Amino acid sequence: MAAERIREILLDPEVEMDPWTEAYLYASARADHVRGGILPRLERGENVVCERYLDSSVAYQGYGRGLGADAVRELNSWATEDILPDRTFYLRLGVEERERRAREGRGSLDRIERIGAEFMRRVERGFEEIIRLAPGRFFVLDATLPPEELAETVRREMEVATAYNRGGEE
Amino acid sequence: MAAERIREILLDPEVEMDPWTEAYLYASARADHVRGGILPRLERGENVVCERYLDSSVAYQGYGRGLGADAVRELNSWATEDILPDRTFYLRLGVEERERRAREGRGSLDRIERIGAEFMRRVERGFEEIIRLAPGRFFVLDATLPPEELAETVRREMEVATAYNRGGEE
Repeated sequence: MAAERIREILLDPEVEMDPWTEAYLYASARADHVRGGILPRLERGENVVCERYLDSSVAYQGYGRGLGADAVRELNSWATEDILPDRTFYLRLGVEERERRAREGRGSLDRIERIGAEFMRRVERGFEEIIRLAPGRFFVLDATLPPEELAETVRREMEVATAYNRGGEE
Repeated sequence: MAAERIREILLDPEVEMDPWTEAYLYASARADHVRGGILPRLERGENVVCERYLDSSVAYQGYGRGLGADAVRELNSWATEDILPDRTFYLRLGVEERERRAREGRGSLDRIERIGAEFMRRVERGFEEIIRLAPGRFFVLDATLPPEELAETVRREMEVATAYNRGGEE
C-alpha cells in the first residue's frame, strides 16, 4: 500500500524536507489509510481502533513544526473527509519518563525522533492544548500503567461508546 | 531531495493509491520544490522556468481524476504559498499526434501513463478549461514545431515579461 512507502520517506534520516512537505506526506498517508482502510469498515458498521490520526498531525506539524493547528487541520480535510473519532485515547507520560523510555527504547532514531527534545515538548504541549479544546472526545490514560490494563480500559470504553451509539440509532 | 523519492512512489506501476493520496503526494513534492527551489531564487530576483506546476495538478487530479479543480487548488495552497507564474506556456498537441508520440516514446509506461486514453482526454479538456478561465497568463504553443523554435519563443516571451516587470518597478 502507498502509506508504507510514504512512511519510509518520512522516517528516513537521510531525507531532508520542508515542514510543509512533511505535513502533505502525512496527509497523503492518512488519505490512503482513511479511504482504503477506515471508511470501508465504518460503512460496514464495524468499530475501528487506529493508532495516531489527525490529532497527531496537528500536534507534530501544527505545534511541533509551528505550521499552526488550523492550517494542518484544513490541509488534512480532504484526507479525513472531516471524520473524527468518537473517542480518542491519549496515553500521557511525564517528560522525564518519556525521554528515559525513548533513550532505552532503540538504537537508532528515525527522522522525526532526531528533531530533538524541544520539538517533542512543543508536540506534547500541543496535545494538551488539543485536549483542552475538545475535552469531550478525549480519554486520558496514565501511560505508566501496564499495557494489559490500558488495553482493557480502551476495550471497556469502546463498548460503552458503542452501546451509546447503538442507543442513539433506535 | 524528498521530491525525487515522492516521484518514485507516484510513478511506480506497482503502487496502488486513492486519487486523494495521489493529489497530496503531488502537493508534497510541490511544497518541496517551491520552498527548496523556486522561492529562494525568486527572492534573489532570478527568473525561474519550471516544467509542470499547479495547473498540472488541477488538470490531472482535478479534471482527470475528477477531484474538482477548486479542491485541488485549495489543497495546494500551502505548497505554493498561492504563488502563480507570470507566464505559463502550454504546448498544445492534437490527440492523435499525442497518442502516436506516447506509443512511440517509450517501452514501459509509468503509473500515470497507464491510466488510459479516457483519463488523458479529461486532462486535456481540463487544461483547455484552465486556459479559457485565465487567458492572460497563458501562452499557447504549437507542440508540432521543432523544439529549438519552441525554446526560442519561450526565451523571447520571458524577456518581454521580465522587461515589463522591471518597468513596473520603476
